[in-house]
Amino acid sequence: MAGIKASQSRVSELNRSHMLRVLYRGGIKSRAQIAQELDLTPAAVSKISARLIDAHAIEETSDIRGKGNRRSIGLRIPAERFHVIGVKFARTIVQIGVFDLNGTALAIDELPPVTDDCIADVVSDVRSRLAHIIDADPDVVAVGMAVPGPYLRTVGRTALVSSMHGWRRVNFLHEFGTAFRVPVYVEQDARAGVLAQSLFGKQSDGARVPQPDSAAPTAAPTAQSTAETTEGAKPSTLAYYLLGEGIGLGVIDHGMLINGELGAATEIGHVSIDVNGRTCDCGNVGCLERYCSATAIRHDLLEDPDAPHIAGVEDMTPAQAANALFKAAADGDQAAVHMVARVGRYVGYGCVTIINAFNPGRIVLGDIVAGGGETLLAAVQSVVDERVIPQIADATSIELSSLPTDSAISGAAAVAVNQFLDNPSLFLDLK
Amino acid sequence: MAGIKASQSRVSELNRSHMLRVLYRGGIKSRAQIAQELDLTPAAVSKISARLIDAHAIEETSDIRGKGNRRSIGLRIPAERFHVIGVKFARTIVQIGVFDLNGTALAIDELPPVTDDCIADVVSDVRSRLAHIIDADPDVVAVGMAVPGPYLRTVGRTALVSSMHGWRRVNFLHEFGTAFRVPVYVEQDARAGVLAQSLFGKQSDGARVPQPDSAAPTAAPTAQSTAETTEGAKPSTLAYYLLGEGIGLGVIDHGMLINGELGAATEIGHVSIDVNGRTCDCGNVGCLERYCSATAIRHDLLEDPDAPHIAGVEDMTPAQAANALFKAAADGDQAAVHMVARVGRYVGYGCVTIINAFNPGRIVLGDIVAGGGETLLAAVQSVVDERVIPQIADATSIELSSLPTDSAISGAAAVAVNQFLDNPSLFLDLK
Repeated sequence: MAGIKASQSRVSELNRSHMLRVLYRGGIKSRAQIAQELDLTPAAVSKISARLIDAHAIEETSDIRGKGNRRSIGLRIPAERFHVIGVKFARTIVQIGVFDLNGTALAIDELPPVTDDCIADVVSDVRSRLAHIIDADPDVVAVGMAVPGPYLRTVGRTALVSSMHGWRRVNFLHEFGTAFRVPVYVEQDARAGVLAQSLFGKQSDGARVPQPDSAAPTAAPTAQSTAETTEGAKPSTLAYYLLGEGIGLGVIDHGMLINGELGAATEIGHVSIDVNGRTCDCGNVGCLERYCSATAIRHDLLEDPDAPHIAGVEDMTPAQAANALFKAAADGDQAAVHMVARVGRYVGYGCVTIINAFNPGRIVLGDIVAGGGETLLAAVQSVVDERVIPQIADATSIELSSLPTDSAISGAAAVAVNQFLDNPSLFLDLK
Repeated sequence: MAGIKASQSRVSELNRSHMLRVLYRGGIKSRAQIAQELDLTPAAVSKISARLIDAHAIEETSDIRGKGNRRSIGLRIPAERFHVIGVKFARTIVQIGVFDLNGTALAIDELPPVTDDCIADVVSDVRSRLAHIIDADPDVVAVGMAVPGPYLRTVGRTALVSSMHGWRRVNFLHEFGTAFRVPVYVEQDARAGVLAQSLFGKQSDGARVPQPDSAAPTAAPTAQSTAETTEGAKPSTLAYYLLGEGIGLGVIDHGMLINGELGAATEIGHVSIDVNGRTCDCGNVGCLERYCSATAIRHDLLEDPDAPHIAGVEDMTPAQAANALFKAAADGDQAAVHMVARVGRYVGYGCVTIINAFNPGRIVLGDIVAGGGETLLAAVQSVVDERVIPQIADATSIELSSLPTDSAISGAAAVAVNQFLDNPSLFLDLK
């Protein structure tokens, strides 16, 4: 009989998760609307919603107008009542943010720039800051972390962080996995970013944002999204292209995050665009991130004789150097405009590879280098128009991220929110 | 109440599909073993198996020895009783094969080499050959087709077939979709190949071959595999790297075929390995298939002054030219050995990209250029060892296909078998 019980509780959890996702996507819905969307009976919806109301995960709202102008009671998730913490670890950048379930930032703190020799101190500083926030805010239900890839999800470590090797020694699962009263989930940064675009981002005109929608509940402190495609829903594919100190990519294909065997898939930063090109710490040659990351921009500003002159660039972080370049371009410095366009062409070569490898319907550019704005985007689009089969290029929209905060920190929060929506029984008192 | 009915019939179909998959993978199993694997009650297993027995999809076998040496009745799929037809469309090659459900070839026919101006005739020839086979063999339940990518699955056409543009004009869904008494499923060739490796291939030592395991039944004549990861099963990621007249890739990531928005994902043949390299018909520059496909080998044998002399190569098809090169290398021609190693290095650059993009646990090399054998494989492995992060390279096995027939024709059959296992009610009289 254990079999029946396991199956039934799994089905119950799936139904709760599906109901929460319908309300999360749709805002306020009546029980009848939910029943229709989920293909469940009114009785089943009443039962599931009653338990979620008891657990304060959803609440009734004032009347809403339904079909035939009839009034009915709406249900909603009180998203403001659940808080998650997002932590972004980049190379030199560590940010901690508190968000509500909708991804609205309530507070964001940035730590001082990290150097390779102070990483252990930074980790312990983050741990005590998190403990403090979690103690002070009883609404916090989970912590999500975004870390540079290739992140080996079962091991808990990043396999390589080019130009900042110290991060390799940090085992995120050991350092944070069981440190607090709330669970901690760790995800590769760009994969976290695509979750943020999917959960918090604006939807393209008419297109449904694909949402990962996990079937298998998991207690492991690692974000893992596996999904079945909902029958009748139009599946689609979304990519988040992280142009930061490194270059990363997260892809949701038909509702499922692409992970690979070890969690090291979609490492576009280490895909070669020139097998005879620049060497990289990862062993590969011609890695994309050696051409168009913020780190590469800083390097080229220092080394390339054709680069614009940016005063004080040798003392800047990669983010500061990239921002200074974009400012110079905006101010009309022709060498800077030229360099932004060149960086954009390399970002574009990456897009061509992303399209041939993953065929996303939508590519969102985010993080530091997306600050190149329309000049950069125009160069990207022109490379894609030149180099992709027209029928496929026409079916791919490429845009700058419209999230109010950086996608990786929003993404860290999204990793936690995604787990909440997938496995509500881990977070709620469902009796 | 329509809701209940739909949900219940979907659950029933899923249970039938899961039971068929357990027996397909495991050979003979008792009802108790099935109940345990699927986490179902004995009563549920009895009910499901009774209906499948009535429909002749499974049958009871003589006693098997179970736990504690107790005997029980086994169940099996009479795989020899169901036939599928596989059709492989390459550039110049069209093959038609009849297979049983286990992928054993019963008959394989190859049509005369196709030229760009006779494609319409070839399509009509294939249609009449299929009609003839289906008329003569009542055991045929489905037709699977493998076509060159990028294949636009909802449109039914291939977006581009470099060097053989005539194929673009063929709409496979219109030509074959409803032509016969059995359904026809069309899939990109390398994706069909990875299905063949998954369903028919030998398993790696200890590793479970990931099987796509569709949840949503679909009546559309297109192979579409979407899956939930079975709880408790070790998920993994498998890639089939098709080295034929073109270069293709199929990836099953944690039980799910990677498709992309239009079905044009995993087009590794058009991923650039050199943004300043050889131009390609697709508009991109440095496409992998311009360096190591059979078509590229034939081209280089004709044009490259360092290439070995192969008598009569100008009258050979790409497959004949590649095979002649491999024979010359095996016979000790040093220029030929050198060229095979060079082709292998390019195949290896593709592997490095496949690993960074998809992180498969296993990459199977198949089709014409895999005929380069150990010389080729050694060159591939050496590039991977040089250029991939060691921890990730160590977790990736790269091997030559061990299927007795070409993976793409087996793959065409696998596309049909996969649909049979996913959606049994489309093929069986389940009352």
